[in-house]
Amino acid sequence: MDMPAPSSAILSRKGAIADRLRAVLPPGCVIDDPAETRVYECDALTAYRCAPLCVVLPTSTAEVSAVLRVCHEEQVPVVPRGAGTSLAGGSLPTADAVVLGVARLTRVLDVSYEDRFIRVETGRTNLSVSMEVEAEGFFYAPDPSSQLACAIAGNIAMNSGGAHCLKYGVTTNNLLGVTMVLMDGTVVELGGPEGEALGLDLLAVVCGSEGQLGVVTEATLRILPRPEGARPVLIAFDANETAGECVAAIIRAGFVPVAIEFMDRPCIVACEAFAKAGYPDCEALLIIEVEGSEAEIADQLGRITAIASRFQPMEIREAKDSTEAARIWLGRKSAFGAMGQMGDYICLDGTIPVSQLAPVLGRIGQLADGYGLRVANVFHAGDGNMHPLILFDANSADGLHKAEALGADILRLCVEMGGCLTGEHGVGVEKRDLMTDQFRPEDLEAQMRVKDAFDPDWLLNPAKVFPLHVSASRRAAA
Amino acid sequence: MDMPAPSSAILSRKGAIADRLRAVLPPGCVIDDPAETRVYECDALTAYRCAPLCVVLPTSTAEVSAVLRVCHEEQVPVVPRGAGTSLAGGSLPTADAVVLGVARLTRVLDVSYEDRFIRVETGRTNLSVSMEVEAEGFFYAPDPSSQLACAIAGNIAMNSGGAHCLKYGVTTNNLLGVTMVLMDGTVVELGGPEGEALGLDLLAVVCGSEGQLGVVTEATLRILPRPEGARPVLIAFDANETAGECVAAIIRAGFVPVAIEFMDRPCIVACEAFAKAGYPDCEALLIIEVEGSEAEIADQLGRITAIASRFQPMEIREAKDSTEAARIWLGRKSAFGAMGQMGDYICLDGTIPVSQLAPVLGRIGQLADGYGLRVANVFHAGDGNMHPLILFDANSADGLHKAEALGADILRLCVEMGGCLTGEHGVGVEKRDLMTDQFRPEDLEAQMRVKDAFDPDWLLNPAKVFPLHVSASRRAAA
Repeated sequence: MDMPAPSSAILSRKGAIADRLRAVLPPGCVIDDPAETRVYECDALTAYRCAPLCVVLPTSTAEVSAVLRVCHEEQVPVVPRGAGTSLAGGSLPTADAVVLGVARLTRVLDVSYEDRFIRVETGRTNLSVSMEVEAEGFFYAPDPSSQLACAIAGNIAMNSGGAHCLKYGVTTNNLLGVTMVLMDGTVVELGGPEGEALGLDLLAVVCGSEGQLGVVTEATLRILPRPEGARPVLIAFDANETAGECVAAIIRAGFVPVAIEFMDRPCIVACEAFAKAGYPDCEALLIIEVEGSEAEIADQLGRITAIASRFQPMEIREAKDSTEAARIWLGRKSAFGAMGQMGDYICLDGTIPVSQLAPVLGRIGQLADGYGLRVANVFHAGDGNMHPLILFDANSADGLHKAEALGADILRLCVEMGGCLTGEHGVGVEKRDLMTDQFRPEDLEAQMRVKDAFDPDWLLNPAKVFPLHVSASRRAAA
Repeated sequence: MDMPAPSSAILSRKGAIADRLRAVLPPGCVIDDPAETRVYECDALTAYRCAPLCVVLPTSTAEVSAVLRVCHEEQVPVVPRGAGTSLAGGSLPTADAVVLGVARLTRVLDVSYEDRFIRVETGRTNLSVSMEVEAEGFFYAPDPSSQLACAIAGNIAMNSGGAHCLKYGVTTNNLLGVTMVLMDGTVVELGGPEGEALGLDLLAVVCGSEGQLGVVTEATLRILPRPEGARPVLIAFDANETAGECVAAIIRAGFVPVAIEFMDRPCIVACEAFAKAGYPDCEALLIIEVEGSEAEIADQLGRITAIASRFQPMEIREAKDSTEAARIWLGRKSAFGAMGQMGDYICLDGTIPVSQLAPVLGRIGQLADGYGLRVANVFHAGDGNMHPLILFDANSADGLHKAEALGADILRLCVEMGGCLTGEHGVGVEKRDLMTDQFRPEDLEAQMRVKDAFDPDWLLNPAKVFPLHVSASRRAAA
């Protein structure tokens, strides 16, 4: 992964910059001891690491503003960081950058059950938002698998989804407003409790902008009443094609289950060996979950299994109680652990049209054979969000390199089939150099003009999202 | 309504500019005969009119690009126009502007039922999109009441909603991708059949941007399978407060009916006199519609009427068949006609938090009394989108002026209560000068920077959205 050379002028002023930052923050909020900054050298894309200039952990929007004003005056790049769980290297530092962590911004600012929103500081973890409103029977819908650890700030930066996003949408569909600090320290309010935009909908472009436009310090989130119940059904098939056709038929019929998860044989075998969930011996497996009142659940499951029956399933296993439901989910939920036990892996994140599920799985198999690598597929099939897991040997000299090359080929395949490089993990550094496969030059240019408008000096989250050669002239001018 | 003085330099070049436009378009696509441009002098906000420099009606994206290149070179403002149904004056011309109508861009370009999208040119009317996919059992969800006439281009410009938007969302929730021509003629592709954004989500900021960023010529829209059935229930109350509390309780319980419509006594009386729908004699009336399979409908209506019963309704009238359903909807659907028969009126469009329905209705009544005017309320209560109708006498010297002043007070009240100046009609010229009531200067500045990025010369749709004094320095510099 190419990264721009750090500015020696900034490196030489390291001490003075840290002192200026200390002057605007309470004691203990600036970390520049290399032993202590170590934990900030990478996020969950651990293959890439870089020690930052220093780390700041402000405790309020006003302090974030003060930090950014200093960095703007000093023309120092800033890498915003949530909880550091990005799988795309979204908060990978550069050596001349200040890492601005929001981990100490964790307050709950407001809750309204009548108007169904909660306002929090963005360092708060995803799961703790739902826990805050649980006693009143509410929840916050986006639920990335890292939800125990990941921060709302990162969810907004990456427009995170999760297992529930088929029914409830991703972060952008559940985000009503934010307070954001621009690179020059200006504090802007976008959206609000009512969520509606008028004039230009900046909230929508900020969501998913990967820290390129500003630092989001507060967020108003939609909360929803928890459904009365939920129940999964497991459906086994003897071919990926048939399972793919079944998903397309269910979607076409207009159902919006909470989740339609798809596992292929390599994934089923790995999960069964690991978790012993009692999965059938089959080529492809769907787990479909519906929710609502008992009557709604029974009605929906009846219709879904009727559709599935047209595709000659090997087995339809409806959960009769919560123990059976947990057992059906057990294998799926341990997929990443199971794959980890088999060796090193990288987890991809691309999208394809639902109609292309089966042919894409076939092509992925061929690509993997070409590299002599194994790929297991587990993904959110209902919205075509694939997560191929590429197994490789990290101890082999070119193990990671080969796996990344296969990963790039698979993501290019997604684009070729009418899909996207990323469904919910973001571009970060991981997919940065593939952006020219997704976008024409004029489309990227339009995106960069908006970046210019918010961050004319290109100081925020450097070397992410836009390929270095595409942004070169802007970064040179800045 | 203040409008900027037209450029005399442009007015003096009128003939030459029309000739240059004729040179890049097929015969008959440039209209500059004042008799023929007359129909383009206003949209549905007929109180404001202005003859444009000329009108162009291109027939392809390439022709739109050619027109914009000419206008960019000539530095002539451009007013994009869909079907001219804007209630906010969104396509009001200025005397020195070229009106760019998309009325001849009406082709269907692609349909996929498996991946649930349709791609159309944006001059196509909203209803004709649903009709195109009706035979296969699908529909396009946003349904503004002008859907027979309004164009997809205008729906995207204003982020239009409609009666179904409580369940299905507004245009932005159903728009997957667009082709847009920038002011300099560059053609960009935003989004795609998969809808997902990566990098910066420009599609989201373009939706609802009221023609400030570019001219959208093609759109990929989500289509949905039509539900099996739908059924309304009418619930009558003896006080607005109780009806408002009932709506809040239903929303809080997590129901997402297709529609929750609210009518107050002045509106009920007018509709009953006009349409004779057999509405009860009451202070406030809710029409709640649910849809789905017969089992789902019965289940949902049972729970909704159980909640409503807690609020001592005067009557709960469930439709037993399609005749009764039509009768329940008859009054509501004729509300605007009924009001029109009582006199001239202006229709407002603001939003408030659902919890504030009752107090806001009370305050509106007090404000109306202060002006000596009558207001009838009919609105989408489920999402707090109000449409107060202000009756006035157009033949009185200050009739319109007084009604507009009351309207502005009511919209400021919406903002004060935590809501918005507009739910689905847009800002246009109508609400332009109220934007400083909604936004702080730094928030408007952030919006204008994005406008700068797309349209640095501020040529697109002049004098809309941003108050003239706020945009003055930019327009002077351009």
